[in-house]
Amino acid sequence: MNNFSYQAPTRYTFGRGAEENIGREAHAEGMTRVLVVYGHSSARRSGLLDRVLKSLDEAGIAHMEMGGIDPNPTDDRVYEGIDIVRKNSLDGIVAVGGGSVIDTAKAIAGGAVYDGDFWDFWAGKAVMTKALPVGVVLTIPAAGSEGSGNSVITKKDGMHKISLRTDFALRPKFALLNPELTFTLPPYQTAAGIVDMMAHIFERYYSNTEDVEVTDRLAEGLLRSIIEMAPRVMAEPQDYQARANIMWAGTLAHNGLCGCGRVEDWASHGLEHELSALYGVTHGAGLAVVNPAWMTYAARTNPRKVAQMARRVFDVNDSDDSGAATEGIARLRRFYKSIGMPVTLAELGVKDPDIDALVRNVHINKGTPFGNYISIYPEDSRAIYALMAQDLC
Amino acid sequence: MNNFSYQAPTRYTFGRGAEENIGREAHAEGMTRVLVVYGHSSARRSGLLDRVLKSLDEAGIAHMEMGGIDPNPTDDRVYEGIDIVRKNSLDGIVAVGGGSVIDTAKAIAGGAVYDGDFWDFWAGKAVMTKALPVGVVLTIPAAGSEGSGNSVITKKDGMHKISLRTDFALRPKFALLNPELTFTLPPYQTAAGIVDMMAHIFERYYSNTEDVEVTDRLAEGLLRSIIEMAPRVMAEPQDYQARANIMWAGTLAHNGLCGCGRVEDWASHGLEHELSALYGVTHGAGLAVVNPAWMTYAARTNPRKVAQMARRVFDVNDSDDSGAATEGIARLRRFYKSIGMPVTLAELGVKDPDIDALVRNVHINKGTPFGNYISIYPEDSRAIYALMAQDLC
Repeated sequence: MNNFSYQAPTRYTFGRGAEENIGREAHAEGMTRVLVVYGHSSARRSGLLDRVLKSLDEAGIAHMEMGGIDPNPTDDRVYEGIDIVRKNSLDGIVAVGGGSVIDTAKAIAGGAVYDGDFWDFWAGKAVMTKALPVGVVLTIPAAGSEGSGNSVITKKDGMHKISLRTDFALRPKFALLNPELTFTLPPYQTAAGIVDMMAHIFERYYSNTEDVEVTDRLAEGLLRSIIEMAPRVMAEPQDYQARANIMWAGTLAHNGLCGCGRVEDWASHGLEHELSALYGVTHGAGLAVVNPAWMTYAARTNPRKVAQMARRVFDVNDSDDSGAATEGIARLRRFYKSIGMPVTLAELGVKDPDIDALVRNVHINKGTPFGNYISIYPEDSRAIYALMAQDLC
Repeated sequence: MNNFSYQAPTRYTFGRGAEENIGREAHAEGMTRVLVVYGHSSARRSGLLDRVLKSLDEAGIAHMEMGGIDPNPTDDRVYEGIDIVRKNSLDGIVAVGGGSVIDTAKAIAGGAVYDGDFWDFWAGKAVMTKALPVGVVLTIPAAGSEGSGNSVITKKDGMHKISLRTDFALRPKFALLNPELTFTLPPYQTAAGIVDMMAHIFERYYSNTEDVEVTDRLAEGLLRSIIEMAPRVMAEPQDYQARANIMWAGTLAHNGLCGCGRVEDWASHGLEHELSALYGVTHGAGLAVVNPAWMTYAARTNPRKVAQMARRVFDVNDSDDSGAATEGIARLRRFYKSIGMPVTLAELGVKDPDIDALVRNVHINKGTPFGNYISIYPEDSRAIYALMAQDLC
């Protein structure tokens, strides 16, 4: 176990009707004039946005709105939000949505109190130490942004997508989690969210740091509970308890708990990033293809932790590490398929992948080598992309 | 899963040399003049106290000291501390020690900013909403007070021991966790701490709330990692990695994570409390006797969750709930014995228990019935105390 610092101060209010606390929570954080950021029509159509605005009204909190945030949110909307905040002297940001909405809200919150260009933080030219307070009403369990200090923004000029990780500044002050708000998520989005949260755990779990037993067991426990609950939400979208477990797991998957005491990996996110960039695939669906391929390749030289995952998450009973790893990966693939996720590039809709371009781009963005559990050089990333093209089920 | 609120904002700095951040951390919390609360000579003898004071000096933070806090800390020391804080206009409290020291520091922090008698909070006559900031240098992994909002204080007049639970006010602002500081803990105290942290998990785990899969899996994961690491710390007190895992598990066992979404139980703590009060036994050692006896009794009418614990924590392979529960409890008892803990009242040094008095007192303090997983009436508490007198290993 390595030395670490950890602080996850977000105040969670979880359960039915949680969103109706928005006025009280925003007031408790000292917000008086807020920007409400949201996505497309569903928040308005479902009546959620109205409930949020009503609660803010009742708490005497003035509000302006900025809707229409797209998946893979872009810097232009952040600049627009910063402008609204400054011109109207707003003092807080409320995000109503999933990861893209929350990440945009966070970027606005950090950029609004910074004299320079907000992109400086994402470009690594400045370190963010403060931001306006952000509150969240979560509607999509997937990205984990409601409890993390992270924000992923794409610069439109060049479509450069960068994840900023702050220890503290961008952690939401509060997050309101009502599982009922996820009842209407379409099956594909539900499943992609499940893969995404599992990937957030895998990226931390696959580490060469030894003796992180506590953190490993928490990670394995979250994976098991997600895998157990997933068939229930797929079979019955209004299964409140299953939705609740998935929602809470998604938050804990990415609030840093599963990284305490170890070096993390994040190679699979890098590999997936290029698929999304080149072929516009859904992040979670891309990860369902990338994660097992990466594990297959990693287990060839370093099967230990893959075997541990297989035994502890999928109850694989094989004392040989390579054998256990192979069987565990096969069960992971079957699980992804069972919830309607692709596990090959072809199933993802990428019939003729440009592996040269993928390899070139991933090393431009991630450097050479990248990863912790295994070090990835161009010959490795090429081999992993090639595995994604094979049907290994 | 029930609705819940959860906020655990304590900033943890974990690892070798963590205590040397005390000056910087206290300064970051706005402390300028602090009361340093500690226990007996070990903190001074080991040089730890000097390192803490030096770090405070270097950060320009003035300090006064209050040492000699005993186990089961009493209200007189709290009044004394409040008096020092007020007379000297101190603005922060630093605890250097284990649960008793931290709980005293917290009570001083809450009492110093309250106009009335600090005991009002413990007596349920007032609700604590604010306190001076508290920082912790942890030396004993057991009570979990470094991450909790709780404080247990005994009123000397009548020896009334009460645990106050605040959601937020008494959460330490920061906690510095250096596993090396636990190398010199004697084996008995190490083992009693292990039992204590496991009990904090059990008291939350044994619940009739259904569908708390995520929280269950986290609890089971913590229990497994503690059980795996315990033999290592007992065999080799300077095994840094094992000490580190035990220390982090002890914090997570009691910071509320394992209670999210469910009604908790806490009957075993109530039953143990009377053993400590009447016979002066160490809290953790008492719990090693109480927990398995309570589980044995509970499993007679409600074996489901005991069986789940047996299967998931001790790998018991028995599809019958009663059979699995019995085997799981037997393995738990053997584990406690293996780390030198008593599992019967006789081993605890209580040869001729006054069961009438224990039953009378527990219902005076806990009411009738008490508990969640099973409801405990006098005939039940009598039966559980009787089980503690038997050798069931």
